[in-house]
Amino acid sequence: MHELAKMFRPQSVAVVGASGDPEKLGGRALLHLKTLGYTGRIYPINVSAAEVQGLPAFRSVMDLPEVPDCALILLPAGLVAKAVEDCAAKGVKHMQVLSSGFAEEGGEGVAMQQRLAEQARAHGIRFTGPNCLGSISPPDGYFGTFSSLLATARPGPGTVGVATQSGAYGSHIYAVAGFRGIGISRAIATGNEADVDVAAAIDYLAEDPGTKVICASLEGCTNGDGLRRALLKAAAAKKPVIIMKVGSTEVGAAAAATHTGSLAGEDRVIDTVFRECGALRVSSIEEMLDVAYLCSVGPKPPSAGVGILSVSGGIGVLMADACVENGLEVPAMPPEVLAEIRAVQPMAGGRNPIDTTAQLAGRLHVVETISQTMMRGSELGAVMFYLAHLGRDLKRFPPLAKALTGLRRDFPDRTVVAVMTHVDEVRLALEAEGIAVFEDPNRAVRAVAGAERLLRLQAGAAAVPEIEAAAPLGLSVANEAEAKRLIAAAGVPVPAEHACADAQAAVAAADTLGYPVVLKILSDDIAHKTEVGGVLLNLADAEAVAAGFATLMERARRARPDARLDGVLVATMLKGGVETIIGTLRDPVFGPMVMFGLGGVAVELFKDVAFASAPLTRERAGKLIAASRGARLLEGWRGGPPLDRSALIDALVALSRFAAAHAEVESVEVNPFLVREKGAVALDALVSFGGG
Amino acid sequence: MHELAKMFRPQSVAVVGASGDPEKLGGRALLHLKTLGYTGRIYPINVSAAEVQGLPAFRSVMDLPEVPDCALILLPAGLVAKAVEDCAAKGVKHMQVLSSGFAEEGGEGVAMQQRLAEQARAHGIRFTGPNCLGSISPPDGYFGTFSSLLATARPGPGTVGVATQSGAYGSHIYAVAGFRGIGISRAIATGNEADVDVAAAIDYLAEDPGTKVICASLEGCTNGDGLRRALLKAAAAKKPVIIMKVGSTEVGAAAAATHTGSLAGEDRVIDTVFRECGALRVSSIEEMLDVAYLCSVGPKPPSAGVGILSVSGGIGVLMADACVENGLEVPAMPPEVLAEIRAVQPMAGGRNPIDTTAQLAGRLHVVETISQTMMRGSELGAVMFYLAHLGRDLKRFPPLAKALTGLRRDFPDRTVVAVMTHVDEVRLALEAEGIAVFEDPNRAVRAVAGAERLLRLQAGAAAVPEIEAAAPLGLSVANEAEAKRLIAAAGVPVPAEHACADAQAAVAAADTLGYPVVLKILSDDIAHKTEVGGVLLNLADAEAVAAGFATLMERARRARPDARLDGVLVATMLKGGVETIIGTLRDPVFGPMVMFGLGGVAVELFKDVAFASAPLTRERAGKLIAASRGARLLEGWRGGPPLDRSALIDALVALSRFAAAHAEVESVEVNPFLVREKGAVALDALVSFGGG
Repeated sequence: MHELAKMFRPQSVAVVGASGDPEKLGGRALLHLKTLGYTGRIYPINVSAAEVQGLPAFRSVMDLPEVPDCALILLPAGLVAKAVEDCAAKGVKHMQVLSSGFAEEGGEGVAMQQRLAEQARAHGIRFTGPNCLGSISPPDGYFGTFSSLLATARPGPGTVGVATQSGAYGSHIYAVAGFRGIGISRAIATGNEADVDVAAAIDYLAEDPGTKVICASLEGCTNGDGLRRALLKAAAAKKPVIIMKVGSTEVGAAAAATHTGSLAGEDRVIDTVFRECGALRVSSIEEMLDVAYLCSVGPKPPSAGVGILSVSGGIGVLMADACVENGLEVPAMPPEVLAEIRAVQPMAGGRNPIDTTAQLAGRLHVVETISQTMMRGSELGAVMFYLAHLGRDLKRFPPLAKALTGLRRDFPDRTVVAVMTHVDEVRLALEAEGIAVFEDPNRAVRAVAGAERLLRLQAGAAAVPEIEAAAPLGLSVANEAEAKRLIAAAGVPVPAEHACADAQAAVAAADTLGYPVVLKILSDDIAHKTEVGGVLLNLADAEAVAAGFATLMERARRARPDARLDGVLVATMLKGGVETIIGTLRDPVFGPMVMFGLGGVAVELFKDVAFASAPLTRERAGKLIAASRGARLLEGWRGGPPLDRSALIDALVALSRFAAAHAEVESVEVNPFLVREKGAVALDALVSFGGG
Repeated sequence: MHELAKMFRPQSVAVVGASGDPEKLGGRALLHLKTLGYTGRIYPINVSAAEVQGLPAFRSVMDLPEVPDCALILLPAGLVAKAVEDCAAKGVKHMQVLSSGFAEEGGEGVAMQQRLAEQARAHGIRFTGPNCLGSISPPDGYFGTFSSLLATARPGPGTVGVATQSGAYGSHIYAVAGFRGIGISRAIATGNEADVDVAAAIDYLAEDPGTKVICASLEGCTNGDGLRRALLKAAAAKKPVIIMKVGSTEVGAAAAATHTGSLAGEDRVIDTVFRECGALRVSSIEEMLDVAYLCSVGPKPPSAGVGILSVSGGIGVLMADACVENGLEVPAMPPEVLAEIRAVQPMAGGRNPIDTTAQLAGRLHVVETISQTMMRGSELGAVMFYLAHLGRDLKRFPPLAKALTGLRRDFPDRTVVAVMTHVDEVRLALEAEGIAVFEDPNRAVRAVAGAERLLRLQAGAAAVPEIEAAAPLGLSVANEAEAKRLIAAAGVPVPAEHACADAQAAVAAADTLGYPVVLKILSDDIAHKTEVGGVLLNLADAEAVAAGFATLMERARRARPDARLDGVLVATMLKGGVETIIGTLRDPVFGPMVMFGLGGVAVELFKDVAFASAPLTRERAGKLIAASRGARLLEGWRGGPPLDRSALIDALVALSRFAAAHAEVESVEVNPFLVREKGAVALDALVSFGGG
């Protein structure tokens, strides 16, 4: 059993701060436990009453006839510490601290929360909160929360688990799930997360036998390793994780930082970690529930090919567009399949979507033949039906129901979706057969795409390889020449070049290297050389090099009078190939990351940069490259020769291992990293160190 | 009165092909007219019955006691021609031909449809269809359609007009509108569009006094001018048009072409036309109805700034992210506003979104003060409230209702939106005050963004300027030199260059121009010179030019043995500036279009190209440039000098006028068009002619 199982599915629960007044939080929580079907034992704790809401009450947890599986703490903040002592004395191992007045209020609240965490840890007690909404387990009739929502709406039992920091966020999710008829297994709100965080809740849900699908929402994250482990556990258990992380924009991130006090981290890093750990990130609650619904009803599509069968040509096209835009495929049916289809429905148009036309009326049974033919004759992962308003027509729907359920039974691993306006009776009957029902065509497609993506993501989920720490470099700053020495030692190729302190040395170096050459200003204090005019290209002879040296020194002195100048770098002028950027950064939560993108305007105007956790294997480096749109340029651009992808992979692996092994390296930027027909080379490098 | 007004709001209607059997189409349509509240006069036409469904029937339209405003034709296709003759003889001016069996069946059906159109035109009769679903006007209780949907669901009266080709598409829209409580003014399905098309229906709705908002859906379009005029009329009437056009992807476009038999045209051209004419394009029915709902309930946001007030920090951040992603702004409240807010709610966090925290419970009246303070102290276009589940709590909602309605009344031109789970009673009361209510935060934001965009689009809507046709050029093909002469004559600057038939001439030209020079192969048969290695850059002296001439001729002969070679072009090698692409194309439906984008990988990898209808004014050329992400490069890249935007505008205007004045010019591609610090110049040009 998971160590948190008794916290979220207790067979006995103490309500510390229970009240007779359901308008008070401690009264409402008790009322929910009493009246909503919970069959466990409920122990109201109240210092002054012998009975609360008709139940015998106890002065302290210590007075209870048994050790409760969980204690819900609903006392004012100042009284919580004493209650925890009582729980510890009794041997309680799980608490949910719903009391507010802790870190969310700042000042003394922060210290009080820290003491609470230490106190619990000392006694071996695990807890959610403080300042949390509690948790629910509808299959157990357990609603351990004061959420006022339950007075008018209550999610039914089901297999979708929900883990959120925010109680409002969580209750919005399960309220809307309830309206849509999506059943919930557990819903957990972790509040201030002094102990149990969303990652821990996901970890629990990944093991919970009653949960098939996990919905989660994060506002901040401090425990990157814990989150990675929990997501990987869910992926290994083949439980889809559909996750939101707010603060994806600058404005949002600033607001989230104010709100949670926790560092948001680079949003694209979060994206990367979710993807690497097999979780599907979504950006709305609606999308989250649509995907969760599809996954909870039937199988996920085993491939990206979708067959569309529509009674409306226009909606069929709409759905085909939506499939392509969501990364699905709409393969044309082979001629023999089309011939079979037209044999039963001569009017049927298109090659996929198949437009049955409205002439279907009165001949609904042909839908069965057509859809079976489509599925049999191709490698479709899903068949989607658009059936207009037939889902409201109880008289005409039976032959369609037969077609849909027959398809599900004959192709048990494929996804079958009906899109139509409908009545509940029709929807429930189809859902019972594993067929998802949507009203909106685009939402249906988005859900199928999400489920298909989840299957691929989970199949590719893998932990970041471990790597041994290297001896610290002992540097706090590095100029270009030093940076290149570091990455060259790590295995990233750099060009032949010389650091030269004066014009004479520069000319000698250029003579040795051969013309034309490049001259670059060399200074620890000038990170972006082009901004000060600190690079001269294509110098053709000794005279140009000598003049260039003077020019660079003068420009640098004018632009940065205080900079210490170490002279210039002289290098062979390399031409041809594609300029890329490779680099690393150290995320405060998720550790070393490596990035790849096209250089130049692609990265600045189009943000075409992909991230991966470091260190990379060669395989993961290949995926990282493929994730950038610029990858196409490596295959040969406009009839040009293919470039040396293997050399790029080598460099990415080497750089990622360097960053992962050196905790003191804050970031590396190799820009440009020139990938050529044969080989690749770092034309510039910048290494930054942390703690400086 | 609009010439189609009697078609869609008839005071008397003949049902030609009326049946006593409501299972038959002609029976069902009659039943709808009889039973759903229509107060006009209904005339069943039936060759054999004296009475149909209890109404006196007539053998022919000719026998009617009056000329009906509209005739609904529900006969088998073969009988339609005779009925039209009867209508003409009676003087009927409007028909809706619901009969199928015409162009949608191909073959003889196509010819029959054409005859129907000619027959109607000859008699001055306007008509929808054939093969259409008819139309409805819920405020009149008029449901002139056989849609079986109406048996179980019927949209209520309202101010949203719907125009679609497809009946299924249209009825899906108004069914879902009905479920969501969005009222409909008219809904029109145009079917095969032998006469009245969606553009004509929009034109009608733009004048219809009962319609405030227009939703439209196109599958194909053949009358580009008509669509432009209708959209501009709606924009002038300040009626938002929210429009879908399926076939936005390659797969979808292919399916749409199969389905409608009409050319889809370049999807980005459609996008451009919609935008220029003030219409908002959306990609889902859900989004369409969300925006229509917001626009029908209250005012559109007059600016992009949104204030967010949330009882949940997390949902507040989610909404802030969604605002930014949808092109809205979430400006931080000024310090004095924040001070005022904290005076009434010390716990309130953030600068916008304002997080009231859950501590609001019991002090809901402060919402009024906070929201008034936000609106008063800033230039917000909208205030959005996230209120969790309070919309289900009739006891606690009144102070919130007071805050929301007070805000609407005090700031009558701004948008107020409540996001919460809710009961109908609460929603209806708020809607009556002009406050839109959503359950999903992202959908609410998307709707606000759509409405804000609509207001801007309509303000900028303008007809394409007229231009006089120029004398035909009399060419069917042009090599680079000729193409450059053409565009130079039109006003696009080209470099000094010479067409040279032999090496000697090339050297002489280079000597005149000054080194270094560029050499390019010159041939009518080689459109893409780089693909055959037909360009040599940076040739430094006469020797290099002579050798280069030989190289180019040899390469061209090897790559294209059949090509006629006209020698080479010699031009000065220009450096510096940014390579862009400017060009034109002639859309078969919407006529001449002009495009602008960055050159190189930006256009090929990132499709960063913007379109506009030709001809351009200087102002519209400026907007076209701004619509490309590459526009930033013109402002000066990484400390470089700003480039000559004015020269680029001149060239775009000149090229657009050239394309618009020459109907025989199919396309022009100037790639690269080099924009420099001073001036701009076409480094290459390709002009293609139609009808060749």
